[in-house]
Amino acid sequence: MQSRVSLFVVAVIVAALPALADEGMWTYNNFPADKVGRKYGFKPDQAWLDKVRLGSARLARGCSGSFVSADGLVMTNHHCAHECIAQLSTKAKDYVKDGFLAKDIKSEVKCPAAEINQLVEIADVTRRLNAATAGKTGPAYFEAQKAETAKITKECATSDDVRCEVVTLYKGGRYDLYKYRRFQDVRLVFAPELAIAFFGGDPDNFNFPRYDLDVAFLRVYDGGKPAQLKDFLPFSKTPSKAGDVTFVSGHPGHTSREYTVGELAFERDLSQPTRLTRMSELRGQLTQFALRGAEQKRIAGSDLFSIENGLKARSGRQLTLTNKAFFDAKVKAQADLVAGIKDPKLKADTMQALSAIDGALNKLRELWSAYMNLEVGWAFGGDTFRLARGLVRAADETQLPNEKRLAEFADAALPAVWANLTSEAPIYYELEHLKMTFGLTKLREMLGADDAAVKKILGKKSPSTLATELLKSSKLGDAKARRAYFVFEDVLDPTTKKKVGEKVKGINLDAVKNSKDPMFAFARSVDADARALRKRYEDEIESVIDQSNEAVAKARFAVYGTSIYPDATFTLRLSYGAIEGWKERGADVNPITTIGGAFERHTGEDPFALPPTWLKAKDKLDLAKPMNICTTNDIIGGNSGSPVVNQTGEVTGLIFDGNIHSLGGDYGFNPADNRAVAVHTAAILEALEKVYGAKAVAAELSGARPTL
Amino acid sequence: MQSRVSLFVVAVIVAALPALADEGMWTYNNFPADKVGRKYGFKPDQAWLDKVRLGSARLARGCSGSFVSADGLVMTNHHCAHECIAQLSTKAKDYVKDGFLAKDIKSEVKCPAAEINQLVEIADVTRRLNAATAGKTGPAYFEAQKAETAKITKECATSDDVRCEVVTLYKGGRYDLYKYRRFQDVRLVFAPELAIAFFGGDPDNFNFPRYDLDVAFLRVYDGGKPAQLKDFLPFSKTPSKAGDVTFVSGHPGHTSREYTVGELAFERDLSQPTRLTRMSELRGQLTQFALRGAEQKRIAGSDLFSIENGLKARSGRQLTLTNKAFFDAKVKAQADLVAGIKDPKLKADTMQALSAIDGALNKLRELWSAYMNLEVGWAFGGDTFRLARGLVRAADETQLPNEKRLAEFADAALPAVWANLTSEAPIYYELEHLKMTFGLTKLREMLGADDAAVKKILGKKSPSTLATELLKSSKLGDAKARRAYFVFEDVLDPTTKKKVGEKVKGINLDAVKNSKDPMFAFARSVDADARALRKRYEDEIESVIDQSNEAVAKARFAVYGTSIYPDATFTLRLSYGAIEGWKERGADVNPITTIGGAFERHTGEDPFALPPTWLKAKDKLDLAKPMNICTTNDIIGGNSGSPVVNQTGEVTGLIFDGNIHSLGGDYGFNPADNRAVAVHTAAILEALEKVYGAKAVAAELSGARPTL
Repeated sequence: MQSRVSLFVVAVIVAALPALADEGMWTYNNFPADKVGRKYGFKPDQAWLDKVRLGSARLARGCSGSFVSADGLVMTNHHCAHECIAQLSTKAKDYVKDGFLAKDIKSEVKCPAAEINQLVEIADVTRRLNAATAGKTGPAYFEAQKAETAKITKECATSDDVRCEVVTLYKGGRYDLYKYRRFQDVRLVFAPELAIAFFGGDPDNFNFPRYDLDVAFLRVYDGGKPAQLKDFLPFSKTPSKAGDVTFVSGHPGHTSREYTVGELAFERDLSQPTRLTRMSELRGQLTQFALRGAEQKRIAGSDLFSIENGLKARSGRQLTLTNKAFFDAKVKAQADLVAGIKDPKLKADTMQALSAIDGALNKLRELWSAYMNLEVGWAFGGDTFRLARGLVRAADETQLPNEKRLAEFADAALPAVWANLTSEAPIYYELEHLKMTFGLTKLREMLGADDAAVKKILGKKSPSTLATELLKSSKLGDAKARRAYFVFEDVLDPTTKKKVGEKVKGINLDAVKNSKDPMFAFARSVDADARALRKRYEDEIESVIDQSNEAVAKARFAVYGTSIYPDATFTLRLSYGAIEGWKERGADVNPITTIGGAFERHTGEDPFALPPTWLKAKDKLDLAKPMNICTTNDIIGGNSGSPVVNQTGEVTGLIFDGNIHSLGGDYGFNPADNRAVAVHTAAILEALEKVYGAKAVAAELSGARPTL
Repeated sequence: MQSRVSLFVVAVIVAALPALADEGMWTYNNFPADKVGRKYGFKPDQAWLDKVRLGSARLARGCSGSFVSADGLVMTNHHCAHECIAQLSTKAKDYVKDGFLAKDIKSEVKCPAAEINQLVEIADVTRRLNAATAGKTGPAYFEAQKAETAKITKECATSDDVRCEVVTLYKGGRYDLYKYRRFQDVRLVFAPELAIAFFGGDPDNFNFPRYDLDVAFLRVYDGGKPAQLKDFLPFSKTPSKAGDVTFVSGHPGHTSREYTVGELAFERDLSQPTRLTRMSELRGQLTQFALRGAEQKRIAGSDLFSIENGLKARSGRQLTLTNKAFFDAKVKAQADLVAGIKDPKLKADTMQALSAIDGALNKLRELWSAYMNLEVGWAFGGDTFRLARGLVRAADETQLPNEKRLAEFADAALPAVWANLTSEAPIYYELEHLKMTFGLTKLREMLGADDAAVKKILGKKSPSTLATELLKSSKLGDAKARRAYFVFEDVLDPTTKKKVGEKVKGINLDAVKNSKDPMFAFARSVDADARALRKRYEDEIESVIDQSNEAVAKARFAVYGTSIYPDATFTLRLSYGAIEGWKERGADVNPITTIGGAFERHTGEDPFALPPTWLKAKDKLDLAKPMNICTTNDIIGGNSGSPVVNQTGEVTGLIFDGNIHSLGGDYGFNPADNRAVAVHTAAILEALEKVYGAKAVAAELSGARPTL
């Protein structure tokens, strides 16, 4: 990778300039259709945009997907369904290793913690937010914004089947209300073996050429039956080739292209390095833990994957941030923005805002270790504590009026909170102990053994002893025992009025009051300190940065107009591009790999070992068919599972990665070599039919209706 | 630690300005005695300097120490003797955990891999080096310098008992020849339990107040008997107090205060971050490895300590490098230097040199991953490979004329090479496997699975499989089997002419030629690629940087004169200062802790658990006696084990650490809060007598002669 560092040329497109080339993660209500039409000879109309939007799925825990049949079939990446597949696995049956195929609809199994959303409506609420915060600053600004947001989302969230979010776009330049249909009953239909889903493993991750079948099929249910969908994206029957126009509709999680120089420096100097070393150490621990035995390997698999994936992504981002040419270009762009402002008051406001951001970040430098450990929860790794704190806070917050609550406990967010807190995902003591011990050890390391909070938390105990005590006697890891903390109400069939299920109505305050659970008590005991840190963070840092960024956004609109796209926010975006390779150290990279290439790369040693099913099916497979492709679409983490769509609105691919150069895309898009990486749909159909005998799924993807 | 970041104020003294305050790691032949006299009313004369120099010891593997009795007793830190203590330990007897005390002289045990040096002479060889390299550039410059260095050291190293090194000072502004007496027979006399030597463990490391007995006593032998020393440093009998003047004589390993802005940016952006994440991951692996059982904890102990210590030190350094005020000051200092040059030619040369350094570092950015992995050896973690490569290269290099060899195989360095390659230090398969697998995994990660070198090394094997194959069948881990690769000659008693031992004469070339050892063959197979990278590094990077720095050094002398000290080079330096605390977040830190404080800090949980011997001895101990002190001396890693000496040349303390603020000392000394941390000699005597019953050692420290 070393010789690639310098290839991130000065020519990188700097954020907030009007987008060039195929750059841009565009919102559906500001898509540059004319521009696409001029470049690719196809101008998407409103009907096309609506169809693709409604065919796009969001996996609430951080991925994208697509609705690919009239009966609720959802396509996403294996790595997006990994958590569900792992949670359904047991010591006796490891679906991550062996794959999963429901032999019929009845055999589809519910994912314990999955939720899928479909974006049904976007409304501009900028005026409401601006009116609410007008004339306010600091904590008052923050409180007003939070209250108005809670009010708007509550009005919108008329039932449990609706999820509403106010989305801050252009760092406060615009606020839109996104209304989703929520599918909470999500079942696993098909997943291949990890060995082919993630063929090449961490070494090949973020690289291309690539040979992965990173796909999983889920199905959304409604009232216990496969959801019937009017809008979905059918598989394409036309073979694709280099140069074909490609649209990617998905949920890029986060970009920092609008970051000020001060924010970028904070990332480069403190935020990223702290995370990189922390994650590296945890990776090392999990690696050795997984070597203890097959069971440990199984239960650590999800964490290890997500840490290694995150580490590689962050390392790539840090390479960009520490690239002098890149950073100098960002400094220049910011200076150019200020210089380009004509209105003297706006100019003064912008300069003042930039300086206020720097001041707030200096405060954050002071607060960083305490805030990340105690409030963000680095100190208390693992799920048991997370659930305990969730219960403590849900009990406290739901007693407050909607507008006064912490944002994540607003009425509109409660269905997701209950789903989360009552999740039946398994929790493993041994892994919990590793993570909690690690968190507490790093807490003491970061704050020092003489810090008051550290003394209060650890007392005379070592991190390991405290973790053992709390975890051994807590019952919160057991989903059944956790039910005692809730009050449930019946769910009735709308026509028969008969009980068809139950749902959480709220917290059982008596149970909370009388709880003797040690982890619950521990979470309670650290909550005041954590909340105090959060309050300081919100009042002195976040609100200052948010409000200042609103001012900078105004300057950006004034100088560059509205033909720009906002930073990614894990909301639905559409990008356009084409199947196209790039030049790597002078050599052309072919944008399409074949199924045969996977067999050539096979060494028999993990992670380059194809699963037995593939070796057995080799003779039946058409080795010349495309396996993976790369495209010029502008995507980023969160886009995993996004459909690649052609101009007739059919799916031709499944995004699962970007190339190594795409990692710097967090900070700017470099059209020369930033590439999205996708599984070609031909490989998916070929594998379903010839490797897995999943004829029903393949038929459904080709338009057949399943037997219900 | 977060709130300390911003305390590293702009006022930090920037390198290469005449030293202020108590700053400076001074060479013995350029000590600012007048300045010390003016500040502290005591001006060291030549006799005092000679006495302290000869009483100072260097532990060849990276620490300092002092000769503290006429019979060869050497005092150093427990953590400097840790490797020896661990190597002498077995599954049955763990001296690291339980401590060690030789009941009499005969019971002292030889450290398998220790060597101690005493600096007997310094000579200026600048003219010889300059004459040899005059008019040469690039590889020719490098070769000429290497050849002249090899010639000088060979002339100097007249026997195995002499070690000679040409030391590059002021980054090439001056070259001195350092001649050492070598003690190769070093035995362990006393070590306390790790629990008190490193009380507070990693959490308290680099912190103060502190309560550690980080001491070990060794003894140097000559001809099988305790060496008789004319010069040594006796223990002081006067109690010390705040304000007392303190001298520290030791071997600071490395500082970067003379680094150019380009070199600092390289450290900040690439070198440090790569090491921090790599070390963090290995730390995580070793942490979990050590949890597998008592034996694993024992064998991983040395590595884990050294990684955690290094990580904390590097993290502290990185905090300084990423401090904007600090870096801006460095940029300004460099600009001021250039502006201050009066001679136009020197000015042009300096600017050209600074730009050449930047160019060379850009090349190093390209070469970094390959060079560090294949030549520096990151890819091949562990001792077995290190020994294999040592054998391969010793066989090749010793057939070349002295001047043509790789620097580390010059004649003067051969005794150390043989000692290293024939060391009987134990090697543990399980730990070797972890380190080699880790190295090979990171190799593939850093260079990519498609890299030619990676493909050549791994073939179709996984890192773990390759490590297993090589380590399972190699015999190089066995010191006895390794003897076959050498030719030995007898060592005769100078008077009786009778054989008293044997020593390595050279490599057994037949054995090398016919070796079937797989690790040897593996090391041989990767050597050409590694050497090619080294050649590129030396020719295109190192020689350019070295020569350019010589030019910058000339500018520095021209602008600031010679009243400056050179960057640390793991050669003997003398610093001066006083026992003094500092202000931490507004509160005064008392510079002296007491033995009683250790009992107050005791929690019973590792690493805050005092050993049973201490708990048992509590009533006998004088709890008011000083335990640790901090002083204003300018020290850094490598100074561990240095004596703290008073103006009468007596030892009053034993350096073992610096405070958290001292870590930035790599790049500049901040007199406000950079403090050295030492064990007070009173605590050492108190513990020897009352905790360990080591009356003979205590008596010897008080001037008694031991029974031989």
